[in-house]
Amino acid sequence: MAAYLNMDTLRFLLQHTHDLEQILTLPRFADHDVDSINIMLDAIKDFSDQELYPVFREMDEKPVHYADGKIITHPGLGKILRQSAELGVIGGTFDYEDGGLQLPNTVGTATYFIMDAANNNVPGYTGLTMGAAELILHFGSDDLKATYVPKMISGEWGGTMCLTEPQAGSSLSDITTTAYPQADGTYKIKGQKIFISGGDHEHCENFVHLVLARIEGAPAGTKGISLFVVPKFRPTDDGLVPNDVITAGDFQKMGQRGYCTTHLSFGEEDNSTGYLIGEPHRGLGYMFLMMNGARIGVGRGGIAIASAAYHASLQYAQERPQGRRILDNGRKDPNESPTLIIEHADVRRMLFLQKAIYEGGLSLVLQSSKYLDLSLYGPEEDREKYKMLLDILTPITKTFPAEKGREAVDNGLQILGGYGFCSDFVLQQYYRDIRIFAIYEGTTGIQSLDLLSRKITMHNGKALELLAGEMKATIEAALEQPELQKYAAALGGKIKETQEVLGSLLPFAAKGEYERFLADANIFMEYFSTLVVAWQWLQMGVTAKQLSITGAGNFTDDYLEGILHTMRFYFTYEVPKMNGLVEIMRNDEELTLLKEKAHF
Amino acid sequence: MAAYLNMDTLRFLLQHTHDLEQILTLPRFADHDVDSINIMLDAIKDFSDQELYPVFREMDEKPVHYADGKIITHPGLGKILRQSAELGVIGGTFDYEDGGLQLPNTVGTATYFIMDAANNNVPGYTGLTMGAAELILHFGSDDLKATYVPKMISGEWGGTMCLTEPQAGSSLSDITTTAYPQADGTYKIKGQKIFISGGDHEHCENFVHLVLARIEGAPAGTKGISLFVVPKFRPTDDGLVPNDVITAGDFQKMGQRGYCTTHLSFGEEDNSTGYLIGEPHRGLGYMFLMMNGARIGVGRGGIAIASAAYHASLQYAQERPQGRRILDNGRKDPNESPTLIIEHADVRRMLFLQKAIYEGGLSLVLQSSKYLDLSLYGPEEDREKYKMLLDILTPITKTFPAEKGREAVDNGLQILGGYGFCSDFVLQQYYRDIRIFAIYEGTTGIQSLDLLSRKITMHNGKALELLAGEMKATIEAALEQPELQKYAAALGGKIKETQEVLGSLLPFAAKGEYERFLADANIFMEYFSTLVVAWQWLQMGVTAKQLSITGAGNFTDDYLEGILHTMRFYFTYEVPKMNGLVEIMRNDEELTLLKEKAHF
Repeated sequence: MAAYLNMDTLRFLLQHTHDLEQILTLPRFADHDVDSINIMLDAIKDFSDQELYPVFREMDEKPVHYADGKIITHPGLGKILRQSAELGVIGGTFDYEDGGLQLPNTVGTATYFIMDAANNNVPGYTGLTMGAAELILHFGSDDLKATYVPKMISGEWGGTMCLTEPQAGSSLSDITTTAYPQADGTYKIKGQKIFISGGDHEHCENFVHLVLARIEGAPAGTKGISLFVVPKFRPTDDGLVPNDVITAGDFQKMGQRGYCTTHLSFGEEDNSTGYLIGEPHRGLGYMFLMMNGARIGVGRGGIAIASAAYHASLQYAQERPQGRRILDNGRKDPNESPTLIIEHADVRRMLFLQKAIYEGGLSLVLQSSKYLDLSLYGPEEDREKYKMLLDILTPITKTFPAEKGREAVDNGLQILGGYGFCSDFVLQQYYRDIRIFAIYEGTTGIQSLDLLSRKITMHNGKALELLAGEMKATIEAALEQPELQKYAAALGGKIKETQEVLGSLLPFAAKGEYERFLADANIFMEYFSTLVVAWQWLQMGVTAKQLSITGAGNFTDDYLEGILHTMRFYFTYEVPKMNGLVEIMRNDEELTLLKEKAHF
Repeated sequence: MAAYLNMDTLRFLLQHTHDLEQILTLPRFADHDVDSINIMLDAIKDFSDQELYPVFREMDEKPVHYADGKIITHPGLGKILRQSAELGVIGGTFDYEDGGLQLPNTVGTATYFIMDAANNNVPGYTGLTMGAAELILHFGSDDLKATYVPKMISGEWGGTMCLTEPQAGSSLSDITTTAYPQADGTYKIKGQKIFISGGDHEHCENFVHLVLARIEGAPAGTKGISLFVVPKFRPTDDGLVPNDVITAGDFQKMGQRGYCTTHLSFGEEDNSTGYLIGEPHRGLGYMFLMMNGARIGVGRGGIAIASAAYHASLQYAQERPQGRRILDNGRKDPNESPTLIIEHADVRRMLFLQKAIYEGGLSLVLQSSKYLDLSLYGPEEDREKYKMLLDILTPITKTFPAEKGREAVDNGLQILGGYGFCSDFVLQQYYRDIRIFAIYEGTTGIQSLDLLSRKITMHNGKALELLAGEMKATIEAALEQPELQKYAAALGGKIKETQEVLGSLLPFAAKGEYERFLADANIFMEYFSTLVVAWQWLQMGVTAKQLSITGAGNFTDDYLEGILHTMRFYFTYEVPKMNGLVEIMRNDEELTLLKEKAHF
């Protein structure tokens, strides 16, 4: 069994950096303790070892495809979905009364991280089912809940999110799928939805589609969009009846080839019934209340692939002899036996880069998950604060793992040289798989606009202020450790610099020059996410120092020194790149704004 | 026909920035003029439109594979190879007496660029045949020349370079393929070679392998390696006789799936005859005399893919409506019709980034090709100078297109959103194809070591001094144009900064701390190649200004303004990144050097 993650690292982050024990003191989680969570995570790891990882390559080599109106997936998927459900993966974070286990989202993230690292084709199926069930539970009628949710939690029925349409990718305001009101209070749905992950396959008896559509005559734009449950088969007293939802195809893709991406056609025969969730025209709002969680999930998936790629390339580097170390005279001795490639500085650089990205990114994903828990279940008076922290971190939590995770995997592939490009080795699969994560659930461009135009400015900059406060608390803790002071000071300096950057950008918004304000949002994202992950690394450095003093957690000295070393690497090799980015953002040339002349 | 390149850009660079006319004044090229070259390039473009581009997707979707001991390639490949040969693509740059056309290498690069942009699966077949023929012509006996070269130039026989072995990837000093001397002056070859591009297929009657091997008893390391011609079939008076060269397999790859990557086994029955080229033990030197050309070729291929990806994403951005422009109040009007995505600043940024990388990279590839011509055929007294310029630019010319080209293609894919990830669109193919270019002919790590440890220091820094001189000449020309002064000054500042960086790095070499000296060679490569391409952009800016004044070349104002705008973009969005890189190189933490502790 090749390694695809390090359970010690998950434990280090979950229990120590992000203090799971403290989360578990919240009343909602009273029945859980650290030991019971660890038992659950170990069970997920065993399941992933035994069921997910062994079919990872095969799912890519024999991809999902469409034949005779059906989506054909890997034959083992059904068993995997049922076992996932039994392990509590679908309803784990739900209320007891809804059939859930009331696990923290932080733990939910950890379980999915393990599964994603083992086989990123699979967790999307249960993750989307969970997301769809959650929407029904939060906003649906009791009848909808009773009819759909139990079968979804059990994994018998799949759930999906149907947003995208052929003419409207990122632009949800342009969706045209229409809902026609019927006398009985239901709706007839008509329209096309594409890129529907997990949209159909032979291993679930039914599919519960959560469909964004426009009630006939609704206002234009995002304020005229409603949310419907549209099942593939309508449950009736006589059993399941076809609901005129046609599977029109499966998109063939560069990666995640074991995960179906469906084209669905609703109401071709005017017989597709939809059930309104909540109130008319408020569908996008409902959908977006779940969006933080969904976007954390994308970040988690991306960073899980980076973890798997790191461990695969590390294993190769530890086993592959090649070349020789350079002697003091600048030459090499051909009579010496070849060294392992892990001894070459550039290979070590590529390994540390991967480690810095995946561990820092995983810490960020867990940080956001913790804020999600605290915003929902924390002390009443703190929830608003944690909601703002969650809101500002979400676009970064979604984007850093996708963008920097891709760079990490790229370095992992490079370590294998020509073998990295060959199908016999797994790195090329990770390289292809991770590419979608910068597109899922709002592209990097969309996330960057969200960060700069909404999150930074919301509540008059309050979220940013709170985030800076959290960072300063970490800096305080780090300043107590002489070895960390240098890095604490670096982080402090960059927080100050960020304020200067915003001080030069925000006036454009105030002047109504919004396109100018947002032109370099993508650069700001790269800049700010480097800062946020530097903060995560400083937290991890503090944790490592504390554990090395107290001995808590039984980590080896080598392990803790590895954390500290990687923190140093991140501050030395990644944080300085902010210098270039800040200079880019200070440019006053407006080169990317639309001009009269054609420049392309 | 989708666009995959802009012939105006090729003409702008070849004729104006790099002054083809001046190259053609050299005696060797007396029979050619700009018009005849343009006719040839147009013919190559027509051929690429008609034969190469139409089968590009199909070559990927039905990849090369191995069956019953044979390599099966696209059925149209044979015709393509024959037509390529007829167009002068194989022997074009060779001497008349060897069956060539005495075309400049600069023109050879331009022809291959066109073909690579149309279908990067194909030009490697003829390019390697050309490289193998060139080695025989330079160093082989008259008998070898007469026997092999004419059939190679005609495309009837393929040629390969057999360097890599399973146990020795980048480390040629460890190759073990052995040559046993025979009484008749030939050798029996025995060994395994892998990753042999174009190593076997059904469309050539014979293959001429140029094999690096160790004569029995030769010294260890690179000084004991000899070069042999080992044909698949030995030409005899009775025709072609099998030469015990077995095709053991074809590596399946993530990209370039229409281009075979062969595993060859020599002498399994002790009956594989090899013919020594030149003197024993000097094989690696011969091979490396061709290496500048080979590495320019890799750079050319990478940048051609970036060109094709740019044009594909540009076309999409010009046709796809999506979203709305931001109003002065920061909102969008949903009643407005959607705008084309090319009007969004971030899409424009991604397009300019691609344009800046591919045009700057193409200029660099042509610059190095020109130095190659001048080093071989220029005035005698200048050849040494141009050889040094070629030597120092080669690792950058190979690396920038691979590394930044990959980033360019990545941005092209992102412009298409979810469609970019789908097999129905070509971007994902470019994304997969270009990944190998950072590995071919010496990985980025190897190129970076070559640049910093050999090229920067050679002849006491003379090559660097010459390069700085060339850059300063461009700065002088730019200073005459008020609009360019700012960029000229920026380039000048960075040249100075480079000297400071080297001033802090070189003492490590002087002290014998070579591993420390070279630890960040990869960062130096990124830094220095950004500078070198900034120089190319300043040259292009000077050209554009001059042409806009003189009207020469009949370029439209929009075209020339597009060049100037992209130059500004490169200086504004890419050059500042050097600030971060220089800070990284100034670190004194030695984090990537081997330590006693395990950090991974």
